[in-house]
Amino acid sequence: MSRGADVTPTHWAHFNPVRIAAGVGALEHLPQWVQPQVKVLLVTTAGFSRRGVTDRLLRLLGEQRVVVHDRVTPNAQLDEVEHAAVSLRDQNIGAIVALGGGSVLDTAKALSLGLCSTDAHPFGNVFRAGRPQTWTEAVPLYAIPTTAGTGSEVTPFATMWDRTTHKKHSLSGERLYPAVALLDPDLTLSLPLEETLYSALDAISHALESLWNKNRAPVSSALAFRALAIAERALPRVLATPDRVEARANMQHASLLAGLAISQTRTAMAHSVSYPLTSRCGVPHGLACSFTLPYILRANLDRVAEHAEERTVLAAVLELLERLDLGTRMRQYVSGREILGLQDEMHAQGRIENFAGELPGGLPRLLEESVR
Amino acid sequence: MSRGADVTPTHWAHFNPVRIAAGVGALEHLPQWVQPQVKVLLVTTAGFSRRGVTDRLLRLLGEQRVVVHDRVTPNAQLDEVEHAAVSLRDQNIGAIVALGGGSVLDTAKALSLGLCSTDAHPFGNVFRAGRPQTWTEAVPLYAIPTTAGTGSEVTPFATMWDRTTHKKHSLSGERLYPAVALLDPDLTLSLPLEETLYSALDAISHALESLWNKNRAPVSSALAFRALAIAERALPRVLATPDRVEARANMQHASLLAGLAISQTRTAMAHSVSYPLTSRCGVPHGLACSFTLPYILRANLDRVAEHAEERTVLAAVLELLERLDLGTRMRQYVSGREILGLQDEMHAQGRIENFAGELPGGLPRLLEESVR
Repeated sequence: MSRGADVTPTHWAHFNPVRIAAGVGALEHLPQWVQPQVKVLLVTTAGFSRRGVTDRLLRLLGEQRVVVHDRVTPNAQLDEVEHAAVSLRDQNIGAIVALGGGSVLDTAKALSLGLCSTDAHPFGNVFRAGRPQTWTEAVPLYAIPTTAGTGSEVTPFATMWDRTTHKKHSLSGERLYPAVALLDPDLTLSLPLEETLYSALDAISHALESLWNKNRAPVSSALAFRALAIAERALPRVLATPDRVEARANMQHASLLAGLAISQTRTAMAHSVSYPLTSRCGVPHGLACSFTLPYILRANLDRVAEHAEERTVLAAVLELLERLDLGTRMRQYVSGREILGLQDEMHAQGRIENFAGELPGGLPRLLEESVR
Repeated sequence: MSRGADVTPTHWAHFNPVRIAAGVGALEHLPQWVQPQVKVLLVTTAGFSRRGVTDRLLRLLGEQRVVVHDRVTPNAQLDEVEHAAVSLRDQNIGAIVALGGGSVLDTAKALSLGLCSTDAHPFGNVFRAGRPQTWTEAVPLYAIPTTAGTGSEVTPFATMWDRTTHKKHSLSGERLYPAVALLDPDLTLSLPLEETLYSALDAISHALESLWNKNRAPVSSALAFRALAIAERALPRVLATPDRVEARANMQHASLLAGLAISQTRTAMAHSVSYPLTSRCGVPHGLACSFTLPYILRANLDRVAEHAEERTVLAAVLELLERLDLGTRMRQYVSGREILGLQDEMHAQGRIENFAGELPGGLPRLLEESVR
């Protein structure tokens, strides 16, 4: 039985111009990609500097031309990013190399716009004062992910959090596509187990959210189903043997494919639900956007899967998600009652409308069943 | 059982910057895409002019700025393309709209280079006199496929045939990526049944050839398996009810996904075998590059499929190919003995080396078994 007519829209588009280069040791090829001569801003975290990765990049790129910004902290904060953008403007930066997880890539993407702006409050004026986004230029970005989850290395989106208003803001637009995504699975080996899990759940969430999405299309479906098939096998292996680079590489591929899928569809229900849980209760993003997946998937599996082999993949993903017992993990951060109390903030514009599935019992039942 | 380590290379890359816009009636959106004001060269066939499509495009784009070249014939010929390029150079063409099958798209791609050259024999000097390719510019190309098979709308390749030497030449390079691929399934409704079948077989061949390919990678695999899953279901429906636009749209999607896959991997064994059969014996390309697929697939199914759901898809494709009895169709054009006599010409450089599968009994047995 084909349900193709139900889930594939009659009109669709696709465009993703990111150059992808992947493989063990791919980091060594970075100098081939970054424009020669220009001044480079390296965006990363103190942890990577401590572990010697920053020094390695300085050697690779040529120390004299690199400005290091290694103070990125989890969940890119509007004020911090804005401050960094303004204070780095006089440095004549011609390229940004971002090495890190989602927050590093988000920060770097925001900087790629903020460095080209002359506004003293490029992000505050847009997200707090409500002025229109007028960024027309961006510094070319070379994205090197060290987690396998966000897919940010191939999306035209960046997330920014506002600590003062507890809001999550989205930067988006074609100029946010990185010029190059460089995937070296060696860089993901140092990721702690819990972050590995939550990153992977973010990737699985991206793939599923691109399937029950009103923007779903043939290309995004191809990428999403493959992301799920790879992730479903790779994640248990990564968790069992986190120092095996092959499983890490597979998880990195799954994350990339899921990123390519949401680069076209954006996310939907599960992400919409997650934002207040992260901004108000500090739930890690990958957990917050995945704890509702089992319920949504169970209710929509036949709608999302057009064919038998797709049902096979989705059923395996559902089984994996159920085994991970995400409800119990959620309750380490927040009670069921607190979650229910945040319902009104779970309607992220441009996310929840993307959801093309069914939600029997609505949001309350989704939340109740998901933290049981 | 996973054979992932066997078939996925450790280093891989991906880059495809084509904008895709698809849907019934998408042709009407063409003016949104083509640069305004610039002079447009419309490349198509006499058939489309006869059926009124050229007039429709003239209305859409504005008649006064369009130069029509509607004399494209099957299998783009070097001399004809070169002559057209040189004679159109003084027209100050700023965009090319190509509407047609593979030959139209190939011709248009070659023209997009040839129009920017000052060489009196831009293709002859390269492919006959052996001078290096020095094209550094191309006119932006808007590709509108009317067959569902070549995938040329999203590849950086164009094929050119040399009638005098019976050789097939390949143009390739990033500047050959169309700016936009516009997919309107309505345009494929007029394709005769036999051409519909052979086009679809070309697409299936692209998908399979990208899987048993040494350049296979996670993104190309995702696209190829999905192309096969869609094509295997859509092709019988298109053949049974050729005027149903939904099945035509699905076949068009499969062709596009397969094109995206080979845009990264290029083709392999089955295409290498096909070229002399087309250039010397006039076998339609889609048939020539697919009649060997059942044998190659049977011998490589377990190697190509990493997982159960992939084997399901490949087994269904194999069954479909066997049902189509391509050997008998081949013998309408050429005898088994003639085919065997062309073996020495079946080693296309840059194709046969891409084949990462097994070929028990080598080329002779492949050919014998395939025309039985």
